Amino acid sequence: MSTPDPVHPTSVRLRVFSLNCWGIRYLSKHCAQRYTMIGDLLAKGQYDVVLLQEVWSEKDFDALRKKLASSLPFGHYFKSGVIGSGLAIFSKHRIQDTFRYRYSLNGYPYMLNHGDWFGGKAVGMAVLNIGNTTAHFYVTHLHAEYSREKDSYLPHRVVQAWELQHFIRYTSAEADLVVLAGDFNMHPMDLGNRLLRTYADLRDAYVETPKFDGCEDGGTMIAENPNNDMVPPEKGIRIDYILFKGSSRLELHCESMSTTKGSVSDHAFPYSDHEALTAELRLDRVSQDGVPQDGSKGMGPLARGSDRTAGKLAELVDIVTEARTEVKVGLHCAQGMCYTAARTGVMGLVLLLLELAIAAVPWLALGAPGPFPSVSFYLLGALCFLILLTTALLYLFYTMEIKSLQEAEDQMRQAVGCLQQRLRGFPLASPGPPRLGSPGKERRPGGVGPEE
Amino acid sequence: MSTPDPVHPTSVRLRVFSLNCWGIRYLSKHCAQRYTMIGDLLAKGQYDVVLLQEVWSEKDFDALRKKLASSLPFGHYFKSGVIGSGLAIFSKHRIQDTFRYRYSLNGYPYMLNHGDWFGGKAVGMAVLNIGNTTAHFYVTHLHAEYSREKDSYLPHRVVQAWELQHFIRYTSAEADLVVLAGDFNMHPMDLGNRLLRTYADLRDAYVETPKFDGCEDGGTMIAENPNNDMVPPEKGIRIDYILFKGSSRLELHCESMSTTKGSVSDHAFPYSDHEALTAELRLDRVSQDGVPQDGSKGMGPLARGSDRTAGKLAELVDIVTEARTEVKVGLHCAQGMCYTAARTGVMGLVLLLLELAIAAVPWLALGAPGPFPSVSFYLLGALCFLILLTTALLYLFYTMEIKSLQEAEDQMRQAVGCLQQRLRGFPLASPGPPRLGSPGKERRPGGVGPEE
Repeated sequence: MSTPDPVHPTSVRLRVFSLNCWGIRYLSKHCAQRYTMIGDLLAKGQYDVVLLQEVWSEKDFDALRKKLASSLPFGHYFKSGVIGSGLAIFSKHRIQDTFRYRYSLNGYPYMLNHGDWFGGKAVGMAVLNIGNTTAHFYVTHLHAEYSREKDSYLPHRVVQAWELQHFIRYTSAEADLVVLAGDFNMHPMDLGNRLLRTYADLRDAYVETPKFDGCEDGGTMIAENPNNDMVPPEKGIRIDYILFKGSSRLELHCESMSTTKGSVSDHAFPYSDHEALTAELRLDRVSQDGVPQDGSKGMGPLARGSDRTAGKLAELVDIVTEARTEVKVGLHCAQGMCYTAARTGVMGLVLLLLELAIAAVPWLALGAPGPFPSVSFYLLGALCFLILLTTALLYLFYTMEIKSLQEAEDQMRQAVGCLQQRLRGFPLASPGPPRLGSPGKERRPGGVGPEE
Repeated sequence: MSTPDPVHPTSVRLRVFSLNCWGIRYLSKHCAQRYTMIGDLLAKGQYDVVLLQEVWSEKDFDALRKKLASSLPFGHYFKSGVIGSGLAIFSKHRIQDTFRYRYSLNGYPYMLNHGDWFGGKAVGMAVLNIGNTTAHFYVTHLHAEYSREKDSYLPHRVVQAWELQHFIRYTSAEADLVVLAGDFNMHPMDLGNRLLRTYADLRDAYVETPKFDGCEDGGTMIAENPNNDMVPPEKGIRIDYILFKGSSRLELHCESMSTTKGSVSDHAFPYSDHEALTAELRLDRVSQDGVPQDGSKGMGPLARGSDRTAGKLAELVDIVTEARTEVKVGLHCAQGMCYTAARTGVMGLVLLLLELAIAAVPWLALGAPGPFPSVSFYLLGALCFLILLTTALLYLFYTMEIKSLQEAEDQMRQAVGCLQQRLRGFPLASPGPPRLGSPGKERRPGGVGPEE
C-alpha cells in the first residue's frame, strides 16, 4: 500500500498487481467463478494499482468495478478492436487521464482459431498522481505464441514490442514513475523483450527484487496449473512481467515480488491459466544533490537514457538490427502472401469471365442446350465470385500489413543510424538528445545553430 | 533558414513549409507536373523543414527525395493503411527518430467515392535536433469535410482531434520546440480546432504573426484556385495550419507568415488545390532566470500547461464537454447502423434457410418438379449469401467504430472530471500535474503520500 515506510520515513510503498485473467466467456474454464475469486482477492484492498489483461467482456469489468468500488474506486477499461483490448486498470488513486495506442499489427482476421486479431491489442496508459508523484502505468498484452518452433507471428510481436517501447519512451518523459505490466507472450531473453527493456530503460521487477516468493524461475505459465491447455515445459515459462523505471526525481526499488503458484487454497482451481504477479515498489524522492531524501545509499538519479554507456548503445544497435532482420523476414512473407492473393484473385476473375463466355454461347446460338448442367454452372459462378471477394479482402489486409512492417523497418533503420552516429561520437556526443545548454554537440548538415 | 539572427544574435530562425499536395495519381489534375513544380520550389533551399500531406504515392515521395537530396537531405514517408498515410517530412536537419499514431477512426471503407478510410490517416512525428534544441515536428491530415451542413464525419474528425492533442501533449514533454502542420479540414473556430489548440497549448502561426502575406483571412482553400473542385465561399476558407509552442527553455515567435495565392507565376496552374503555408519562426533560448538570452523583451517561459488560468480551465471543460456531446451523437448513429446490419444479416440468414428448406422439398418428394425456376433459385441464394457476408463485415466494422467512440467518450468524461476537480481547487491546486516538490496538492481517496 502507498504508505510511508518506517525504515525509510520519506519513502512511499506501492503494491502493483498484474494478471492475465483468461476471461473468454463460455470458452475459458470456470470463467465466472474465477472472476468471483479474482474480485474477492482484489477487494481485500492489498493493492494500490491492478493491471489486468484478457478481460474480454466489458460486463466482467463492470462487475469487478462494482465489487471493487470501495477498495479500488478508480478504474478504466480500454476499448479497442471488435471485442475490446482486454486491458483494464483499477486503482486506489484517481486516474487523471488515459491514453491508448493500438498496435499496427496483431495477427490475421482469418485465423479464427487464434482470434488475436479480433482483440484489438493495444497498450493502455493511465496517469496517476500518487502523493505528488506523477506516475504512468502501462498495461499490455502482446500476440500469443502458439508454436515456439514455428512462430509465424514473431514479426508481428517484434513490431508490437517496437511500438510499445516507442510509445513508452515518448509518453513517459514527464513521469516520475513508470510501470509496465502485462502478458508479453515472450520469454525473458526473447528479442522483443530485450528490445523493450533496453530501449525504454525498463527494469525487470523479478530480476531486481531481493525477495521473491513464487514459482521456480519466476514462471507464470506452469505445468502445475490445471487451467493450462498448452502444457509448458516442466519448469514453466516466464511470459508475464512487471517492469519499471524511476526518473531523475525519483528512485525506485522493487522490495519484494511474488506470484501465485498454480493452486489457490480453499478453491478447486486457480485464478487463471497464468499466474498473478505482485510487486512491492519503494519510491524514494531524490533531493537536488542526487541523494535520496532519507539518506539511504541510492543508485543516483536515473535520468532516462543519460546513463547509457558505449556498451549499452552497441548492445542496442545489435538488438535493433536483429529486430529489423525479423521484420524483414515478416515483410518477405507478407509480400509473398499478397502476391498469392493477387494471383488467385486474377485466376478467379479469369474463370468467372470464361464461365460467362460459355454461358453466352447458348444465348447467341438460340435454343442450343447449355454446355453445363445448371447446378454446377451456378456453383462454379458462386465459387469464382467468392474467390474474387476473399482475395480482394486478403489483398487489402496484406497491403496494410506490408505498410506497417515497412514503417517499422524504416524506423528501425533510422534508429540504428542515429545510435551508430552517437556511438561514433562517444564519449564526446551526449547520449541522450542534446538539450539547450547541454554540452553535447552534433554536427548536422545544414543545421547552423548559433553555437555551432 | 536556421541561421543566427543579426537583430537577436542568439536567436535562430526556422522556415517551416506545409502543403497538402493533392497527389492522387491519375485522378488529381496535372499531378505529375505539379510535383515537378513543388520539387522545384523546395529545391531552392529556402526551407528548413517541409511537411507534406496527401502524398498518396510513395513513388512521388521517392522522386521528391531524390530531387531534394542536397537542399533537404533528410526525409521520411509515414506508411499506413492501404495506400499510405500521405504524410511526409523533409528536413535540413537529421531526423533522429520518427513515430506514427494511426487514428482509431477515419471514415468508412464502403465510402469508396470519399476514400478517406483507405488512406490510413495518422499523425506522424519526427524528432530533430536543431543546434542543440530538441524539436518535435508533427504532420497530419484529418478526415475531409464533404458537406458543411450535413457533416456525417464530424464525430470521426472530433475523435481524431482528440487523439491528436493527446498524442502531442504526451509525446512532446521533452521537446523544446513543437510544430504541428497539416490539413485539419476544420475552420479556425471549429470544435476540433479549439480542442486541439486549447488542450495542447498550441499557438496558431497565422494569428500570432505580425507580418502576413497571403490570401484574405488566411484562406488556404480559395475560389481563385482553378484546381479546386469544391468551390469554397468567396473569401475562401482556412483549413490548413501551422501551430507551434515553445517550452520553459525556449521562446518561440512567428516572425512572418505567407501563403501562396492561387496562381504561380510562369506556370499554368497552382501547386495544389490547397495553398501552401510558410512560417518563419524565431527561437530564443531562455536563460535560467526566464529571460531570453539576447535580452529582448520576451513573453516569459511557456511551461506547458502551467500558465493555465481558471478561465482557461473552464474554457477547456466547455470544449471537452462539447466534443463529448458530438462523440455521443456519433455513437448513437454507429449503434443504429450496427443494429441495422445485424437485423439485415439475420433476415438474409432466414431467407437462405427458407430457400434451402424449399429446395429440400423436391429432394424429399422424389421426382416432383422444383418449386422455383432454377435461375431465380440460384440468384436468390447468391443474394442471400452476399447479404450475409456484407452485413457480417459491416457488423464487424461498426462494432470497432463503437468501441473507438466509446473509448474517446470515456477519456473525455475522465478529462472533464479531472479538469473540474482542478478548477474547484483553483488557485490552490497546481493546474499542471503536480510534480515532486511542487506546491500543488490534491487529496485523493486512498492516496497517502508521505507529505499528506
